[in-house]
Amino acid sequence: MTLQPGKPATKLEDTSYGYVSGLIGMVGPQVKGSFSITFEASLAVEVMAKMVGERPNGVNDEVIDMVGEITNMVSGGAKLLLSEKGFEFDMATPMVITGHGHTIAHLSKGQKIVMPFTSQWGKAYIEICFEDSLGSDTPPPSAET
Amino acid sequence: MTLQPGKPATKLEDTSYGYVSGLIGMVGPQVKGSFSITFEASLAVEVMAKMVGERPNGVNDEVIDMVGEITNMVSGGAKLLLSEKGFEFDMATPMVITGHGHTIAHLSKGQKIVMPFTSQWGKAYIEICFEDSLGSDTPPPSAET
Repeated sequence: MTLQPGKPATKLEDTSYGYVSGLIGMVGPQVKGSFSITFEASLAVEVMAKMVGERPNGVNDEVIDMVGEITNMVSGGAKLLLSEKGFEFDMATPMVITGHGHTIAHLSKGQKIVMPFTSQWGKAYIEICFEDSLGSDTPPPSAET
Repeated sequence: MTLQPGKPATKLEDTSYGYVSGLIGMVGPQVKGSFSITFEASLAVEVMAKMVGERPNGVNDEVIDMVGEITNMVSGGAKLLLSEKGFEFDMATPMVITGHGHTIAHLSKGQKIVMPFTSQWGKAYIEICFEDSLGSDTPPPSAET
């Protein structure tokens, strides 16, 4: 399965673009922030079908667990990349939200970056937001990549 | 405004009980986890009305910011109490979810504790979930209080 990355943008609205979202908090000595990845239901179901070879009827507990694991993996990848740039942080445990039309507000003082992805099965969106650990506005390190 | 605490319970379902939820991740050397506080819309609006002296029409951006601040305050209080018991952690930045019937799954390996609160304006629920930083199942320290 290929996800086509779109143009990163600074998010202006808190409207969610999907049905199921994985969220995780990040804390380090210099930075703290939050990360989310949102899937349209059809895409989450397709990812599950490709992983286990069987198509779930919808976003069930197994799909929710999978979205949590993907949240860990993708934010873990970001952790690795940002660590090479000198930004160290540890991740909390993931939370997964489901709900039609749910919105996510990342209440970090740093700028939000949203990265859209498209595929034939639906869309996904990654959002990442950092501030320095003192709570000041700081440009998100991801903006430099 | 008085919130009447109910009996703490271990949560069995991921169904949300309210309209607006503040979520925050926690990371420490021994433990990591997640915390959420969920309000019925009527209660969130009433808290805002009592704080600023003017009643918002609904859960708007100011109410979302307030729920984020409450999330910081309450999890900061928990941090202080748990620090006295030897559990140290730092908090990430809060995220606030809105949506009718949204669900929250705390994907920590530790047990979930849910604390219900009631008031004449509506209900609120706090959920807290910890695991040790190696990812093993560990009894949540909050269960001892």
